[in-house]
Amino acid sequence: MNRLCVHTITTKPLSVEECFRQYPPRGVAGITIWRQALEGRDLPSVKRQAADAGLDIVSLCRGGFFPATTDAARQSAIDDNLRAIEQAHAIGAPLIVLVCGAVPGQSLVESRKQITDGIGSVLAAAEHAGVKLAIEPLHPLYADNRSAVNTMRQAHEICDALGSPKQLGIAVDVYHVWWDPELEEQIKHAGRTGRLDAFHICDWKTPTVDLLNDRGLMGEGCINIREISEWADEAGFKGYREVEIFSDKWWGEDQAFFLDQIASRYSQTYS
Amino acid sequence: MNRLCVHTITTKPLSVEECFRQYPPRGVAGITIWRQALEGRDLPSVKRQAADAGLDIVSLCRGGFFPATTDAARQSAIDDNLRAIEQAHAIGAPLIVLVCGAVPGQSLVESRKQITDGIGSVLAAAEHAGVKLAIEPLHPLYADNRSAVNTMRQAHEICDALGSPKQLGIAVDVYHVWWDPELEEQIKHAGRTGRLDAFHICDWKTPTVDLLNDRGLMGEGCINIREISEWADEAGFKGYREVEIFSDKWWGEDQAFFLDQIASRYSQTYS
Repeated sequence: MNRLCVHTITTKPLSVEECFRQYPPRGVAGITIWRQALEGRDLPSVKRQAADAGLDIVSLCRGGFFPATTDAARQSAIDDNLRAIEQAHAIGAPLIVLVCGAVPGQSLVESRKQITDGIGSVLAAAEHAGVKLAIEPLHPLYADNRSAVNTMRQAHEICDALGSPKQLGIAVDVYHVWWDPELEEQIKHAGRTGRLDAFHICDWKTPTVDLLNDRGLMGEGCINIREISEWADEAGFKGYREVEIFSDKWWGEDQAFFLDQIASRYSQTYS
Repeated sequence: MNRLCVHTITTKPLSVEECFRQYPPRGVAGITIWRQALEGRDLPSVKRQAADAGLDIVSLCRGGFFPATTDAARQSAIDDNLRAIEQAHAIGAPLIVLVCGAVPGQSLVESRKQITDGIGSVLAAAEHAGVKLAIEPLHPLYADNRSAVNTMRQAHEICDALGSPKQLGIAVDVYHVWWDPELEEQIKHAGRTGRLDAFHICDWKTPTVDLLNDRGLMGEGCINIREISEWADEAGFKGYREVEIFSDKWWGEDQAFFLDQIASRYSQTYS
């Protein structure tokens, strides 16, 4: 259980203060904080509260969304990522997860170029703040408007194109990559290159009734979560296993009950 | 317009006889017939009616669904594919499109092995009937329960594993493969290997509100249909461009109006 982390979005109905109260009694050791959970908060105070609760802040979600059709909109995205880096630094989050972005109708090749340029523009600020950036490849299902980076191979290519900066890595989310025939090989490559920086878990339900908010709790679906986790660990990953579930169904349940289920399914997955 | 083909499922509310009446006046030259449209019909009569309407029967949809957890269920799938081959022969369809299948929770590697074995079991019958089989890679969105073959590369690997039989090729559907960074290269490879046997078009809408039945008419979404079509043509493809749209929205419209829209959007796409 000492590797169990939960994303605040997973328990969206709870405020960040309620997350600090309700996560630790279930054995949750880490927390990844979504930026909307920080709205109106004093950031140094959030950092203190997490420490007081005994929770490691694992990462800040999320930066990215670099592609756009105008220079002004691309600069605005870069500015927003610079703000995210400041926020991460202020709460003591060592990592920002990047959902890279895409523009419907713009070629994926052009979007990936803009993503590479965008990340390149904020790397120095990230290094200065001591914050790492992790490219999260998103399922091809989201290639239209959320991310033109849809495989680990593409994430590696962006790291390569930027000269493999120490500040840049990859966030593996089983939901997005479980189908990829190259997955094991690409995870191993991430280990060898020191890019394996975050590991997100949830499950793929059959049927999935909503493209965004019908992710499953571990065991509710078909993903070989345990096996993929072992590939990551064999590649040298020692970080948290972060439960990131977007689910209208689970958000509609009592969140204390949901957290009990998360802890129990986590234990079953890794027992 | 002489390369425009429409799938009967695209105009699901119409009987196959109504398709024969309504397609030709819009300039539709080919028809791909779904098996459910044949229920209760005399197959040689369907063949004659298509010829009388001046419509080429382009393919029969669909075979496949080979993976299963028991020997009996896998044999049952093989038997069903043998029936599909007989049906295709009876209506004069030169090709059967294979949606290869997947079983939630069974590893994709095992499912691909069962798919390869399944196709291998029916190749001789296909050859004897003069019917080709085309593996249709499905979007990774469907890797849980519809197809463990999610890229053209995987389709090629199955063709290779079976010794590149003349009877086996690939059906490219832009909806399923548009996101693939290897797409152009894999289409070229399909051309070189003589495997480029079918080409399906529709569009990817943003947002997509249903995982199965919210495909767009050409131009309603973000897919670079024209560019992908040119890659296919440059690879030597001279066949039909088959409009295959599953859409609760369009099925709810007057189908004569929908067919007018299909013809008009097809012309715009390729003008």
